Amino acid sequence: MKHTLETIARLAGVSRGTVSRVVNDMPGVKPHVRQKVQDIIEQTGYVPHPQARSLAGGTTGNIGVVAFSDNPDYLTHHIFYEVLQAIQADSAANDYDLLLFANRSSADQQYWKRIGTRRKVDGLVIMGEHIREEHLLFYRQLEIPFVLIGKRDFQKLPIACVTSDYHSGAFMATKHLIEQGKRRIVYIHGLRNMHHENARFSGYCEALEEAGIDVHPELVLAGNASREDASAELRRLIQEGHSFDAVFAANDLMAFGALEVLSQLQIDVPQEVAVVGYDDVQAAAYYSPPLTTVRQDKRRLGEEAMRMLLDMLKGRMAADEARTVVIESDLIVRDSG
Amino acid sequence: MKHTLETIARLAGVSRGTVSRVVNDMPGVKPHVRQKVQDIIEQTGYVPHPQARSLAGGTTGNIGVVAFSDNPDYLTHHIFYEVLQAIQADSAANDYDLLLFANRSSADQQYWKRIGTRRKVDGLVIMGEHIREEHLLFYRQLEIPFVLIGKRDFQKLPIACVTSDYHSGAFMATKHLIEQGKRRIVYIHGLRNMHHENARFSGYCEALEEAGIDVHPELVLAGNASREDASAELRRLIQEGHSFDAVFAANDLMAFGALEVLSQLQIDVPQEVAVVGYDDVQAAAYYSPPLTTVRQDKRRLGEEAMRMLLDMLKGRMAADEARTVVIESDLIVRDSG
Repeated sequence: MKHTLETIARLAGVSRGTVSRVVNDMPGVKPHVRQKVQDIIEQTGYVPHPQARSLAGGTTGNIGVVAFSDNPDYLTHHIFYEVLQAIQADSAANDYDLLLFANRSSADQQYWKRIGTRRKVDGLVIMGEHIREEHLLFYRQLEIPFVLIGKRDFQKLPIACVTSDYHSGAFMATKHLIEQGKRRIVYIHGLRNMHHENARFSGYCEALEEAGIDVHPELVLAGNASREDASAELRRLIQEGHSFDAVFAANDLMAFGALEVLSQLQIDVPQEVAVVGYDDVQAAAYYSPPLTTVRQDKRRLGEEAMRMLLDMLKGRMAADEARTVVIESDLIVRDSG
Repeated sequence: MKHTLETIARLAGVSRGTVSRVVNDMPGVKPHVRQKVQDIIEQTGYVPHPQARSLAGGTTGNIGVVAFSDNPDYLTHHIFYEVLQAIQADSAANDYDLLLFANRSSADQQYWKRIGTRRKVDGLVIMGEHIREEHLLFYRQLEIPFVLIGKRDFQKLPIACVTSDYHSGAFMATKHLIEQGKRRIVYIHGLRNMHHENARFSGYCEALEEAGIDVHPELVLAGNASREDASAELRRLIQEGHSFDAVFAANDLMAFGALEVLSQLQIDVPQEVAVVGYDDVQAAAYYSPPLTTVRQDKRRLGEEAMRMLLDMLKGRMAADEARTVVIESDLIVRDSG
């Protein structure tokens, strides 16, 4: 015999609505009634149809994480999987299942739309360097609440987002180098025209200004977040005869590139040139010399994003409220600077 | 006006079934008809209800990844996120969405059951060191096809799985050390009584035997996959006066622990003692000295698991077929051994 919501209700001596509430983990059922229904479900082997669940609850019970990135290896990026770990733990703790989407803007032209139109999620956490305003407008139009990891400035819509404090992270790192007596501090840029890169560069500039040091444009290099570009640019700087006593790179990989060049040219680190990175990737502690760097609190990025999304889903926060939660970063001092 | 399957069908001059097929990306609709229906859906802003999708297709369009592990940071484990990257790419390419579950056996007693009973997935890829036979029996009973990453030997059920060739990986690493003239090679165990650890240890033994070298039980250490345990055990070995000229550790973290002890005692690596690890974590290449290690092809583990799961979902492979796909590993020779 194939059991249905009706037959379970009859066996338990309760209404269909009560069985539905139990199946959907919804409140409003007395503990002993819930237990009785659960026992009968267990005994009969009744499996609620997902449609029954969804029709009853009106929700999917799913939260989605979307990465907008052209990097096909985005999921293996240290910030992404650390944030994902936090989101997974918090969604499971709140009885949501987690759907994972990666939208490569070059290849998956329509994929991000399907995420919305298939109606598989109650809400979204959105990450990645290729988020566009049209994506968010579309999700908002479909009334799917979302929270962004990383700050974006879009004119047309108020957004809830969580971001690291890149400005103060870069300020701390630069100030630390100045306190070591460094004055001519090279800055190696990550990807330009991103909110977080602008914030980082402004933190560097502010620390210099506060110490009465001019920003020397020739010491500001285009690293493009790439180890190779950072190496090549630093090598060019040295060959052109510019002097400097420190390097602050906008990510650890570029700092590794700088350390390679300095090692090849037998320039002593940190005596002659100190090096500080950004991110604290796993390899930073193992590098020779171990890298001084700024560590983002990736878990808290995920936790705060989930906190806001759950507030939206539970009606405690409007889905179109503009709110920016800023997470502090830490300077991790090791041997390189 | 709120559009339904009926109104779209009427506007397009086709049957409800045809609209359903278009909405569900199912075959059997002529291209120009499909285009016409899609245009009308676009114009009307009609959003198919997920229940309509599911009722029509009979499937969820979702694949699930389940990690059975007590490690709360399992998603940040380098093998997991690399495998996940491959599964995500292949599931998206095949028009499946991806659900991500992590079941901590200590805390989430019932979670793994809900994954099955909520009927949110068409199939599962299952990973982690805490997979139990009862989990798999339960999913099999619910007729949810699954593929395992990593080999398990369960008596009651035939399983499809993908595994790295740990035996030959360890054999290669040990043989490489022997070819460097090493004879007294310490082995540091990972977590015992796991299929892959047994396979690794047997590869070590076979390489020694092939070279006519005895396995010395005093050189086989209990590292428990922990850097601290590996350091402590190697330090004890040295203090007790045992001689050895190489260390093969069952993971890179334990190899780092061994290198630390050797560095503190100013024992030259690799001249006096060569060190080889297992995994090729990101930090291995950056360690000082860079670590020689065995690299698993994590992407292929994910790809082959997806290949089998898709074969099951498309009826090209029985869900209860016993099949083991073995992926070769590579020895990455750097400076430590």
